Amino acid sequence: MSDEFITIQSIGRKGLLKEISEFRGESRKNTVKGLGDDAAVIKEKDGSLSLLTTDTFVEGVDFDPTYTPFTHFGYKIISASVSDIYAMNGNPNSVLVNLALPNRMSVQMVKDLYRGIDNACKKYELELVGGDLTGNHSNAVISVSVYGKADEDTVTYRKGASIGDAICVTGDVGAAIAGLRILMREKRFWEQHGDNAIQPDLEDYKFVVQRQLMPEARKDLIEALTAQKLVPTSMIDITKGVINEVTELCSASDLGAYLYQAALPIAIETRHVADEMEEGVDKYALFGGEDLELLFTLSEKQVEQFIEHFKDFAVIGRMTPKDEGLKMQTAEGDVLNFDDLS
Amino acid sequence: MSDEFITIQSIGRKGLLKEISEFRGESRKNTVKGLGDDAAVIKEKDGSLSLLTTDTFVEGVDFDPTYTPFTHFGYKIISASVSDIYAMNGNPNSVLVNLALPNRMSVQMVKDLYRGIDNACKKYELELVGGDLTGNHSNAVISVSVYGKADEDTVTYRKGASIGDAICVTGDVGAAIAGLRILMREKRFWEQHGDNAIQPDLEDYKFVVQRQLMPEARKDLIEALTAQKLVPTSMIDITKGVINEVTELCSASDLGAYLYQAALPIAIETRHVADEMEEGVDKYALFGGEDLELLFTLSEKQVEQFIEHFKDFAVIGRMTPKDEGLKMQTAEGDVLNFDDLS
Repeated sequence: MSDEFITIQSIGRKGLLKEISEFRGESRKNTVKGLGDDAAVIKEKDGSLSLLTTDTFVEGVDFDPTYTPFTHFGYKIISASVSDIYAMNGNPNSVLVNLALPNRMSVQMVKDLYRGIDNACKKYELELVGGDLTGNHSNAVISVSVYGKADEDTVTYRKGASIGDAICVTGDVGAAIAGLRILMREKRFWEQHGDNAIQPDLEDYKFVVQRQLMPEARKDLIEALTAQKLVPTSMIDITKGVINEVTELCSASDLGAYLYQAALPIAIETRHVADEMEEGVDKYALFGGEDLELLFTLSEKQVEQFIEHFKDFAVIGRMTPKDEGLKMQTAEGDVLNFDDLS
Repeated sequence: MSDEFITIQSIGRKGLLKEISEFRGESRKNTVKGLGDDAAVIKEKDGSLSLLTTDTFVEGVDFDPTYTPFTHFGYKIISASVSDIYAMNGNPNSVLVNLALPNRMSVQMVKDLYRGIDNACKKYELELVGGDLTGNHSNAVISVSVYGKADEDTVTYRKGASIGDAICVTGDVGAAIAGLRILMREKRFWEQHGDNAIQPDLEDYKFVVQRQLMPEARKDLIEALTAQKLVPTSMIDITKGVINEVTELCSASDLGAYLYQAALPIAIETRHVADEMEEGVDKYALFGGEDLELLFTLSEKQVEQFIEHFKDFAVIGRMTPKDEGLKMQTAEGDVLNFDDLS
């Protein structure tokens, strides 16, 4: 690289990740999977696998305190973090939380945050075992690290799908972004009308707002897979949107994918919001992030078995050869290439 | 708590930690040690112990980029993090690094940071296995999480010392704060004289500046203890100063301590800086943080054995009954109570 001053903004997140990809430290024999999956995988002497994942959440970037109650946010950051462990077909065990907080924050805000963290830890059976507490000048920055366990026979990576495998997704997609659209609209309204504005009635939007503020990680899928002794051929959680995550699975397995637009599971509440906003609901479903649903691939035979025992998932497409790229058949029967979608 | 708005600043770090101490999530049977030590300790099925530790470093709070080269800082944050693993008498294995970075940063700065991280990982035999990359508005916030291993027979906690145990410290103390004092003085000089100022010659202060910018964690102590099959009765690393860490050991073991001021290991370079600054070098030694030396307790018999094989440590005091508190005998023979020291 030349001596020119190049900002990280100009090369973007992917560009920066590429620039630093050479720095991996010292290779360790017990690293089964390092960078590039939902969690790192370390092999213990007893053959069991330890999983490590970590995420940072930045006030003003990843959350807006004007419409995010701290209790909800505490819950959400734990959900988002354990979701990475579930995406490996693992079980979370312990969590560490680092806070860098501005002095202006109130004790009550921090307690609310921890109340949410505590609630989520109880839900996902996690113990809070560590963390760090430091100051920051302007905004709150929170890091969450989760330690979990998986078995060598059942751990599931982004890589592993075969041509013909069904692309499956739990629950429904696009609800979290629909909730964000509502909250942002209400925020603009408050900003325009000041303190005298009537408190917004979010009751009609409860479903989507809840999905944005306090999403659940899909522990139930992992339990159902375990009960059925089924191991997906690949898996990832939906944090950046269906298209992004399907692309990750394709890239990891060196395959393409063919999606059916009509099969995308979208809640009626999400459709209502899109209609009200005069936006396409499919954009929410395909590109909306933070749903924390699990996207996974199963063989045809596995689908037949699983569908008898777990109802809350949909088959949204098939894995195809790499040279067929990422395509989607629209409800009208047209076929779009991924490049046409973005 | 009342509805009154109480800022976290007003109750301080310890007050805040107390307020949130009730939130621990769900207790897990395999948690051997949760909050309150240098690292969390999780028991695996094979009986081995997994160690987890995490720290956050904030630009403008924990480091000042005007005198901190990013390569050095990358090295330092890894040293500081693995030091927590060594303080458990464990060995670090894997590291995850989260970055929240402002867009104005250059690609070269980030690469320099990672070069330092990479160098330290190679030194401590750590693999970089994960992390997160997100944006921040104003400053860089970095979180480092380290995964390590320890044995059930040799893991060392803050708790465990007995009355009469020798309080030992590796290397020398106060050098990191001496380095910081020099760097802050140079910064003031630059600020007063602008870009036309002559570049400062830090050659005379190389030792202390290096200790501030690029400290080493004491892997060598752990190797020597292992070779001698010696297990300290308690241990902690020095991040907030000798008095603070001795207080932590006393509190964990429900004991007091008696220190000998004359026994404090202080480098000649550190003394020179204190003289130049017209400050007491003992303040550096007792209250200066970030030395990353290890403070540990050994029985009398263990000291006799260890001193034959490892030279770079000093006995600075003894553990005493709790009701004797924390005292220090000065070089002049006076006895100070801890309360007199702060």
